[in-house]
Amino acid sequence: MTSTEQTTARFGGAAASSELRRVAAELAEAARGAILPYFRAPGLVAESKEAEAFDPVTAADRAAETAMRDILDRRRPQDGIHGEEFGKQEGTSGLTWVLDPIDGTRAFLAGTPSWGVLIALSDEAGPIFGIIDQPFTSERWEGAAGLVATHSGPQGTRDLCVRRETDPAGAILMTTFPEVGSPEDAAAFARVARDVKLTRYGLDCYAYGLVALGQIDLVIEAGLKPYDICAPIAVIEAAGGIVTDWEGGPAHEGGRAIAAATPELHAWALERLADGTGRAS
Amino acid sequence: MTSTEQTTARFGGAAASSELRRVAAELAEAARGAILPYFRAPGLVAESKEAEAFDPVTAADRAAETAMRDILDRRRPQDGIHGEEFGKQEGTSGLTWVLDPIDGTRAFLAGTPSWGVLIALSDEAGPIFGIIDQPFTSERWEGAAGLVATHSGPQGTRDLCVRRETDPAGAILMTTFPEVGSPEDAAAFARVARDVKLTRYGLDCYAYGLVALGQIDLVIEAGLKPYDICAPIAVIEAAGGIVTDWEGGPAHEGGRAIAAATPELHAWALERLADGTGRAS
Repeated sequence: MTSTEQTTARFGGAAASSELRRVAAELAEAARGAILPYFRAPGLVAESKEAEAFDPVTAADRAAETAMRDILDRRRPQDGIHGEEFGKQEGTSGLTWVLDPIDGTRAFLAGTPSWGVLIALSDEAGPIFGIIDQPFTSERWEGAAGLVATHSGPQGTRDLCVRRETDPAGAILMTTFPEVGSPEDAAAFARVARDVKLTRYGLDCYAYGLVALGQIDLVIEAGLKPYDICAPIAVIEAAGGIVTDWEGGPAHEGGRAIAAATPELHAWALERLADGTGRAS
Repeated sequence: MTSTEQTTARFGGAAASSELRRVAAELAEAARGAILPYFRAPGLVAESKEAEAFDPVTAADRAAETAMRDILDRRRPQDGIHGEEFGKQEGTSGLTWVLDPIDGTRAFLAGTPSWGVLIALSDEAGPIFGIIDQPFTSERWEGAAGLVATHSGPQGTRDLCVRRETDPAGAILMTTFPEVGSPEDAAAFARVARDVKLTRYGLDCYAYGLVALGQIDLVIEAGLKPYDICAPIAVIEAAGGIVTDWEGGPAHEGGRAIAAATPELHAWALERLADGTGRAS
């Protein structure tokens, strides 16, 4: 089977896949509407450190997940839901919507448009389909291997395609925080970072979108939850890239993840992460 | 004199100030038009590491500065120009346009919308007026103390105003790279970072915009050129904030700069940068 046929089969057929993609787009639109009134809202952020005060990030997070769950209850009652805010709800279809209404809450708090709404559809084997949505910049990445791989935004709509960089010396690497995860995680990351062309920080889920757009080559993160990584996996795989855990296994359960544009960079970075013996080609 | 009167006097009167603001807006529009075709242009970035190949960042940088200089040659031949790409051109008016067509070239290369076009108008005492423009997100910050302090973007236009945070434990700090500048610079930065609420990286000139928007409280950078900091100084001062060098003196000649939302945070951070004896209140 081609990857399109495989993906379509996992969706439950072509008709099901287009129906599910319409539902996913409806979820993304609802999340945008729920979140944007809270982003950079004057007077809200200043209060958020008070224990009793209104927390705009949490309010936006909950409003968006509630809006998405309402749509799923109506449109897809047979599917399961695993959301960051309100946990798991079992389904009967074998499909589960994996939702992170605001990935990058600290970015949201700081006013940086690098947070995103993550929407994935998974079966037992992992994510089939994913959306990364950035409401403030009006950007949306949509991916299902062989079926759809697009980015839409202020510059129009284009097909997603990773870069073909294979040489670490030409690669751009991103992670959100320099400390990455544990001190061991940070040391492993540093073994990768020391031989790439450029390392940048602070981008949250937006960095995965940049891999899929062919702008950067590697993202390495730790301490992830399933809803942080399922949508990026689907988008990057659809764009021709690779996402695994740091040992090369499936990443959709969360933990430590690496996204790479090419098999060569992926293999090199895994070796560096493991023990530092990987050699720049 | 009020700050409006002072600014208007330095502009050369109210009529001159509105004329100069119109010219500045024209410069920003021209830079947007020159740069955006190069941003995330497929197939360009992949070639940029080849010595002989086309470099989209440099091409965009030069196209934008050329476009801005053409306007100034026509509209303001009496003013000086200090641009990042094409250097200094003397004027006779006592006013100089300080231009950085793309601040954050590495962000541009990586596809991150945290780079910006920086346009300042300075007299002998420093910047009077500044624009920070982000073409991809359609955001523009415009500032002249007492005269204009606005942000326009996808959520409309609003007045700029810094946060009133005075406690380091409630402050959000940003810088572009964790190494900041020299190892001593990095150690000084770490003395500030260890007691703030949140430290984020990677935002280039966009971080100054977030101070002016009241989203974050501190930006600390080193190794700046005058054209990296003149526009942010004007914008942040117009929003009620403070920008100095690490010793509390003028920052418009470049080097090491700190932007702070409040005098309290500014004083605390300066003490930490100097010798580590500053104490969190």
